[in-house]
Amino acid sequence: MKAHIGLIGLGVMGQNLVLNMNDHGFKVAVFNRHGHTVDDFLHDAAKDTQVVGATSVQNLIDQLETPRIVMLMVKAGDVVDMYIDQLAPLLSAGDIIIDGGNSLFTDSNRRTDDLKEKGILYVGAGVSGGEEGARNGPSIMPGGNPAAWAAVKPIFQAISAKADGEPCCEWVGEQGAGHYVKMVHNGIEYGDMQLICEAYQLLSEGLGLTSDEMQAVFAQWNQGQLSSYLIEITANILGYKDEDGAPLVEKILDSAGQKGTGKWTAINALDLGMPLTLIAESVFARCLSAQKDERVKAAQLLPKAKVTFSGDKQAMIDAIGDALYAAKIISYAQGFRLLKEAATEYSWHLNYGQIALMWRGGCIIRSQFLGDIKAAYDKNPDLESLLLADYFMDAMQKSEAGWRKTLILAIELGIATPAFSSALAYYDGYRTARLPANLLQAQRDYFGAHTYERLDKPKGEFFHTNWTGTGGKTSSTSYTV
Amino acid sequence: MKAHIGLIGLGVMGQNLVLNMNDHGFKVAVFNRHGHTVDDFLHDAAKDTQVVGATSVQNLIDQLETPRIVMLMVKAGDVVDMYIDQLAPLLSAGDIIIDGGNSLFTDSNRRTDDLKEKGILYVGAGVSGGEEGARNGPSIMPGGNPAAWAAVKPIFQAISAKADGEPCCEWVGEQGAGHYVKMVHNGIEYGDMQLICEAYQLLSEGLGLTSDEMQAVFAQWNQGQLSSYLIEITANILGYKDEDGAPLVEKILDSAGQKGTGKWTAINALDLGMPLTLIAESVFARCLSAQKDERVKAAQLLPKAKVTFSGDKQAMIDAIGDALYAAKIISYAQGFRLLKEAATEYSWHLNYGQIALMWRGGCIIRSQFLGDIKAAYDKNPDLESLLLADYFMDAMQKSEAGWRKTLILAIELGIATPAFSSALAYYDGYRTARLPANLLQAQRDYFGAHTYERLDKPKGEFFHTNWTGTGGKTSSTSYTV
Repeated sequence: MKAHIGLIGLGVMGQNLVLNMNDHGFKVAVFNRHGHTVDDFLHDAAKDTQVVGATSVQNLIDQLETPRIVMLMVKAGDVVDMYIDQLAPLLSAGDIIIDGGNSLFTDSNRRTDDLKEKGILYVGAGVSGGEEGARNGPSIMPGGNPAAWAAVKPIFQAISAKADGEPCCEWVGEQGAGHYVKMVHNGIEYGDMQLICEAYQLLSEGLGLTSDEMQAVFAQWNQGQLSSYLIEITANILGYKDEDGAPLVEKILDSAGQKGTGKWTAINALDLGMPLTLIAESVFARCLSAQKDERVKAAQLLPKAKVTFSGDKQAMIDAIGDALYAAKIISYAQGFRLLKEAATEYSWHLNYGQIALMWRGGCIIRSQFLGDIKAAYDKNPDLESLLLADYFMDAMQKSEAGWRKTLILAIELGIATPAFSSALAYYDGYRTARLPANLLQAQRDYFGAHTYERLDKPKGEFFHTNWTGTGGKTSSTSYTV
Repeated sequence: MKAHIGLIGLGVMGQNLVLNMNDHGFKVAVFNRHGHTVDDFLHDAAKDTQVVGATSVQNLIDQLETPRIVMLMVKAGDVVDMYIDQLAPLLSAGDIIIDGGNSLFTDSNRRTDDLKEKGILYVGAGVSGGEEGARNGPSIMPGGNPAAWAAVKPIFQAISAKADGEPCCEWVGEQGAGHYVKMVHNGIEYGDMQLICEAYQLLSEGLGLTSDEMQAVFAQWNQGQLSSYLIEITANILGYKDEDGAPLVEKILDSAGQKGTGKWTAINALDLGMPLTLIAESVFARCLSAQKDERVKAAQLLPKAKVTFSGDKQAMIDAIGDALYAAKIISYAQGFRLLKEAATEYSWHLNYGQIALMWRGGCIIRSQFLGDIKAAYDKNPDLESLLLADYFMDAMQKSEAGWRKTLILAIELGIATPAFSSALAYYDGYRTARLPANLLQAQRDYFGAHTYERLDKPKGEFFHTNWTGTGGKTSSTSYTV
C-alpha cells in the first residue's frame, strides 16, 4: 500500500503532524535533510505506526499514491523555494505541494502562480496551535490552488481541531490567502496578549492586587464572556509559584520579543490603508518593553505623581473586565475589516464566518468569543464591520461605561494602556459622522494645493482655494522663523 | 561663462529652484523632456535672467563647468533611474548627480552605491517647503556621497531658508540619509496636523466654539510655545469665509488623502522596532477619515451619549493647548529616537541638532519649537531621548496636568483623540521601570516554549518553565472549545 501523503521536515511541528495523521488512519512517508532524524523518528516516536521513511526526495515521491501530496514543514524563506525546485521536476500535473510553515503571503502568491504554470497544485497552509496543537488538533488555514482542496480536505479536516462539532479547517481562498489569514491571526494574538497585559498592570500596579488575587480574577473571567485559552493560561501563570514559593511571573524580565508576524500584519494594514491601530500599538508596546535600560533611567528622571486608587475595588475590577472585552471586540472588528479589504485588494473570496470557525479551536486565540463572531457572519455574511452586528452593538453598549471608567483610572494613575486607549479612539472615531479631517484637507490645500471635496457638492469634484489672496501662488505665509 | 549647475525637470518645484539659484548669482542650465517647456520658461518666468536652455542631456552637460553638477527635479521612481542611466555615461569621475525629489531612501542607498563604483558622486536631497519654499528658501536635506558636498554646499546653503541666521541646509549623512530625514520630516508633519485636528475637534464639538472663536485661540497659540507655520495657517483657515460669509472649513469634506511618506515612516519604524505610535496613529486616522460612508452609517447605529461640557471654558482651552504641546513633544521625541536608531542600523553619522536646524525654517513643520530641540542637542549631542533633556522634562511637567484633563474630557464626551492618547500611553510607558511584558513573556513561554530572562539572573541567560507540569510537553492546556 502506497502512502497517502509525504512530509518533509521532521522538526517538532512536522513530527507531531505526522503522528496526528497516523492516528487518523493516514499512511505517511517522511523525509528529512539529515537521514538520521528519519531513523530516530521511526525508532522512537513513530515506532509501531504505519509511518515509513524515505532516503531521498525521489524515494519519498516514489512511495506516494497519486495524486501525490507532499507537505513541507521547513523554515519559511529560501528553504521552501529550494524544496519546490527539487520537487517540481519530479512531480506530474495534478500533484500537490503544501507549505505548512509561517511563510509571508506574498511568497505564497508567487509560488501558487509559478507552480500553476507547471500544472502543479500549490497550497500555502497556516498551521496554528504549537506543538500540542499539531499533535492533537491544530487550526489549519489552507489557501492556494483550489483544485488541490478535494484531495487535501479529508486529511486536514481529520487531523484539525474540532469546535462545536466542526473541523477548524476550511478552504480559505486563492494564492497566499491561507498564509495571509494566519498572519492576521498572529496579529490578533499580539493584540489579545497586550490587552491582557494592560489589565494585569491595572490590577497589580493600579489596584494593588496580589498574584493570587489576580489568578482568581482571571480564573473567574475565564468562566464568562472572556473565556479563552489566553485568559486561562494567564490565570495558570499568575498562580504558578517559583521554588521559593513566590509568584514566578514577578521574576520574569519585562522585555518582550517578537517573531515578526505581528509586524507584518501592521505593515500590511498601512499598505492597504486600513486602521489596525490596536495591533500596531501592541507591536510598538513590545518594542518599548525591549528598551528596558532606557525606561529604568526615564523612571528615575520622570517620576510619576503618587496617586493611589481609593474606591470600590470589585467595581473597578469589573470595569477592567469590561474594558478588556470591549477592546477585544475592537481588535477583532479591525482585523476582520482588514481581511475584507484584503479580499477586495487581492481578489480573494474569503468566508469570514469560516475563518472565525477555524480560529474557534486549536489555535492560540481560540475562544468562545469567536463562536459569537461566526454567528454574526452566519446571520449576515456581508457585514461591513463586526461593530455593526446586533450582538456586538449590544455588547459594546454594556461594556462602554466600564471601559471609559478604566481609561480614566489609567490616565489618573499614569499607567500606560496603549491598546485600551487606541481601541476607544477607534470606536469613537468610527461612529463620528464628521471627523476633523476637513481641517486637515484645508491645511493640505493651503500649503500644497492638494485640493479638497465639499460636503455641499458631488463627490469627485475638487476645489482649490487661494487662502492667502496673494495672486497665483498656491501657498504663502507671513510666518517668519 | 559656463553654468554652475544643470537642472532637469521644469515642474513647479524645478522652475522655482532655478529662479532661486539665479537670484543668488548662480548660472543655471535647464533641460526638460518637452522642449517647449524650456522655451516657455526662458520667455516667461526666466526672462531677463542668466538661465540658459539645453536641447538635450548631452547639450546640458556641455554647458556646465567642472565638476559638473546635474540636479534632477523629476518624479520619484523609474524616471530617476532613467535619467541616471542617460547621464552616467556622459559624465566623468568627480561629477555630481543630485536627486531633489521625494525618493524612497532605499532607492537613494542603491543609487549612491552604484554610482560610486563609476566614480560619480550621488546626492539624494530632500527638499521641503512647497512651491513658495522652493522660490524663496526651502529646507534642504542632502545626503549621499560626502565627496560631493564641497561643490554643492555654496549653492544649497545660498538658496535655502535661514533660521536664526543659519542656513536650513547641512550635510545629513551617507547614502539615502537625506531622503530618510525628509521622510521622517513628512511623518512628523502627519503627526502635527493630526494633533491640530484633535484640538480643533475638542474645541468645536467639545466646547462648542465657533470658527471665529477658534481662529482667535489658534492665533493666540501662535504667539506662544506652539508658534509654528501649521498653527498659523490653521488660524487663517478658521478665519476664512466662503462667498456666503460662512466659514469655508465647515464645508470641506472630512476625508483625508495621503501621498505615502507618512506610511513609509510608520513602516520603517515597525521594521526597526522603534515605537513611533503617534505618527502611526496619525496615518491610520487619515485612513479612518476616508471611510466616510461607513462612519455616517455607524454614527446612526452607534449613537453617542449626549454629554456636554460644563466647566470653565477658558481653563479647558488652556488645557487643550497644553495637550497639544505635550503630545507634540512626544511626537518629536519618537521621531528623533527613530533617527538615532536608523543611524545605528544603517551606519550613518547623523547630527540631530543640525537636523532640527534644517527643519527650523523653510519647511511645513517649521517652528520655534525646533529651535528648542536644536538647543537640547547642542547641550548634549548624545541625548538618548528628547524626553530626558532638562528643557523638555520641565515642559512636560508644566503641561502634564492639562494634557490628562484634556484626555479625560475626550473620554467623557466620546471625542476621538488617537494621537493625544497614544502620546500619553507612550509617555507613561516610557517612564515605567517595569512594564507588564513579564506576563507576556510568560505567555510566550507557556504556549510556545519561547523562554524568558529573569530579573534576578544575568541578562542573556534564558529559562523555560514547564508551566503545566505535564511531562516533556512544552505546552498544554485543559481549555476545551
